[in-house]
Amino acid sequence: MSNILIIGGSDAGISAALRIRELAPDTHITVMLADEFPNFSICGLPFYLSGEVPEWQNLAHRTKDDITREGIHLMSSHWAKTIAPAQQVVTAIAPDGQEVTVSYDKLILGTGAISRRPHIEGMDTPGVFCLRWMGDSFKVNQYIIDHNVQSAIIVGGGYIGLEMADALCLRGLQVTLIEYFPTVLNTVHSSFGERVADELKNHGIRVETGITVEKIQQSGDKLQITGSPNFSTEGDLVLVAAGAIPSTELTQTAGVKLGKSRAIEVNNRMETNIPNIYAAGDCVETWHKLLQTPVYLPLGTTSHKQGRIAGENAVGGNREFQGTLGTQVVKVFDLAISRTGLREAEAKQAGYEPLSVEFEGWDHKVYYPGAHPIRIRVTGDVKTKQLLGAQIIGHYQGEVAKRVDIFATAIFHGMTVEQFSDFDLSYTPPLSSPWDPVQMATQNWSKVAAQ
Amino acid sequence: MSNILIIGGSDAGISAALRIRELAPDTHITVMLADEFPNFSICGLPFYLSGEVPEWQNLAHRTKDDITREGIHLMSSHWAKTIAPAQQVVTAIAPDGQEVTVSYDKLILGTGAISRRPHIEGMDTPGVFCLRWMGDSFKVNQYIIDHNVQSAIIVGGGYIGLEMADALCLRGLQVTLIEYFPTVLNTVHSSFGERVADELKNHGIRVETGITVEKIQQSGDKLQITGSPNFSTEGDLVLVAAGAIPSTELTQTAGVKLGKSRAIEVNNRMETNIPNIYAAGDCVETWHKLLQTPVYLPLGTTSHKQGRIAGENAVGGNREFQGTLGTQVVKVFDLAISRTGLREAEAKQAGYEPLSVEFEGWDHKVYYPGAHPIRIRVTGDVKTKQLLGAQIIGHYQGEVAKRVDIFATAIFHGMTVEQFSDFDLSYTPPLSSPWDPVQMATQNWSKVAAQ
Repeated sequence: MSNILIIGGSDAGISAALRIRELAPDTHITVMLADEFPNFSICGLPFYLSGEVPEWQNLAHRTKDDITREGIHLMSSHWAKTIAPAQQVVTAIAPDGQEVTVSYDKLILGTGAISRRPHIEGMDTPGVFCLRWMGDSFKVNQYIIDHNVQSAIIVGGGYIGLEMADALCLRGLQVTLIEYFPTVLNTVHSSFGERVADELKNHGIRVETGITVEKIQQSGDKLQITGSPNFSTEGDLVLVAAGAIPSTELTQTAGVKLGKSRAIEVNNRMETNIPNIYAAGDCVETWHKLLQTPVYLPLGTTSHKQGRIAGENAVGGNREFQGTLGTQVVKVFDLAISRTGLREAEAKQAGYEPLSVEFEGWDHKVYYPGAHPIRIRVTGDVKTKQLLGAQIIGHYQGEVAKRVDIFATAIFHGMTVEQFSDFDLSYTPPLSSPWDPVQMATQNWSKVAAQ
Repeated sequence: MSNILIIGGSDAGISAALRIRELAPDTHITVMLADEFPNFSICGLPFYLSGEVPEWQNLAHRTKDDITREGIHLMSSHWAKTIAPAQQVVTAIAPDGQEVTVSYDKLILGTGAISRRPHIEGMDTPGVFCLRWMGDSFKVNQYIIDHNVQSAIIVGGGYIGLEMADALCLRGLQVTLIEYFPTVLNTVHSSFGERVADELKNHGIRVETGITVEKIQQSGDKLQITGSPNFSTEGDLVLVAAGAIPSTELTQTAGVKLGKSRAIEVNNRMETNIPNIYAAGDCVETWHKLLQTPVYLPLGTTSHKQGRIAGENAVGGNREFQGTLGTQVVKVFDLAISRTGLREAEAKQAGYEPLSVEFEGWDHKVYYPGAHPIRIRVTGDVKTKQLLGAQIIGHYQGEVAKRVDIFATAIFHGMTVEQFSDFDLSYTPPLSSPWDPVQMATQNWSKVAAQ
């Protein structure tokens, strides 16, 4: 009976475990994780902190019981310390402080990521938090209650920063969002970022862009943040949302090779350089289908895919990861912002000749009640006409998320912008137009490109 | 200067005209149409009759002014009578009853379809209507007002029948829907049809299935419908929604060849058998990408595509229609039902070995408020594992329409069910899951297929 050890109990790890159970029922599967929260939806933390999800337990994709009922052995609150590849053994610290060793035939690393802590003086000041794991969210929640927090400062206007601005505003806090770049959400074009900032401001959030935060310090009852140019503000709590870096401390003990991004280097079978060791999820470099190079792009969707593939291959399968396109969506109040593929700058850097054209349409026929405007930005290569990327912004009920997925499938297949009109998409006046707005947007791109 | 005549002012005709204007600005374009309503969204008629669209004028995709401003010459209320291909001349009856002739270099036929009138005795009884064109809807509307209509009987539970049941119910009428087949909406699987029937019943609509309507007759103030087995009911108005048949009377005068379905035979360039005559939209047979054969499947989306292609080719382009997949969606009260590709029976007939598996999921993470259950039926070939079709039913705000479009793109590219998991789709807890439910549904299909 094959003996598989998985380190990490989040998306990649549990996906691998479940896939193994499906394909090879007689495998012995152990999932070792550092906390008590296997298979939690950490993407849901903002909605717990907003109060929209009243019980944190509901964030579990599956309960511990669900998992163990699948015959998956859970070693929670075990901190894996070293891997000895020659002996195929992992050493960990058990909850009682004792060292335990676990042997494996195949090892799957799903150690995930940790919050990036930027070089800001006073990051350790009480009341300053990062947000990545369940434990982080409990600390933030408790601090808000214990200190009767009325105002929060969020450093970083990326996905988590925006979701937390929305969340804490819903919770009734006065929120200030500080962003280093000239616009928030710099994973989309600046015109979209500005609309997101407007949405925040319309909900009473103060948005400060182009600010480098330098220092956080206690100032009476408050935390004071100072930065340049010439910036100072105060609040009761500071949340630093500056992205994630791969968690690879453990893997170094095994000589597992890291890539340029300092995440684990894997092939498309999710194999590391060390025999019998696979890795998946936020700890690895991810193959980008358009850039044809590995990137560091930690996303839950990718973790699930890679975990499933690692699991399959660990029990003799032969599945290859087909690459990411960086497809993402975020909801900020009533607005959803989605993207897939490359932004113009990325495309240029990769040797493409990108042209981006924006189109404003409606999510459905405007004569039918409740139509929402949606804005679609299409990026294509002017020479080859290849579709390179798309971004959509609009009301979250305007099918902004699944519309970008149509672009994602077209990019996946290397289609031209023109060919996009060949798709047979669904239509009824309450839900679309005879040409779906995504197709109008690509037709508009072609018109501009032909000029 | 090239002189292009288009007969038909609906989706196909206007799409052709606009595409010609775009590509060849110096072309002389005439659109001849039988009524006064060019470029109206006839798919919107139910929403005018429900009262959701208070002004019928709003159903226009574009106004007459919009069209003429593009330099497109409109000959409305002209009934085209004959085509003389040798002379390249069309004869029509003008509004004043005079015969006029119009010559052409290229002719594009977009004559559309007419309502299928089933063999029911008494179809001509006052108060019995079909619904296809603007004029039909005015008549229905006026009749409802003039006769203080309180109850309606709809014969036919397809798309228009269902939308009209919803519409007339919203308008406050007592509605009975009669369907020939054992379940309504037989373009989707019977399990879906039954859920649609439940939705109708929950809104107070009487649904009678498995009924062959034989006779409609006046009975006092009422219209009485009788049928078998052993069926009789009364109402103030009868709407017969029994589908559409191609309008080809005119084209016969030119010797334009019809296909098996009695619709115009065209190649993928939308050329008929007669030189310089193109045809597009509801009057033609449409190439089915999966069946690899022409079918009669009149849809607004297809009309737009084919019209655009006919227009492009009429001015020297070389664009080919890539085929339909029969992608459709309909909203019935709060429910949306979408489909693409083949149903099991169609697939079998085409030589596939279809297996269909249903999966019930949520439109987004269930911990986030407002999650709706959605049911997804995946059909694939058990031998080749090719994805053949998908159907989705759920709340209309559950992205049921654009989710089926993801399936449509995968079928377009001939993907296997398994490969569907390779798509990089967007995720955020308020809008999806790390595996979108469409991917969970395909994974579930693979699991069942492997058993």
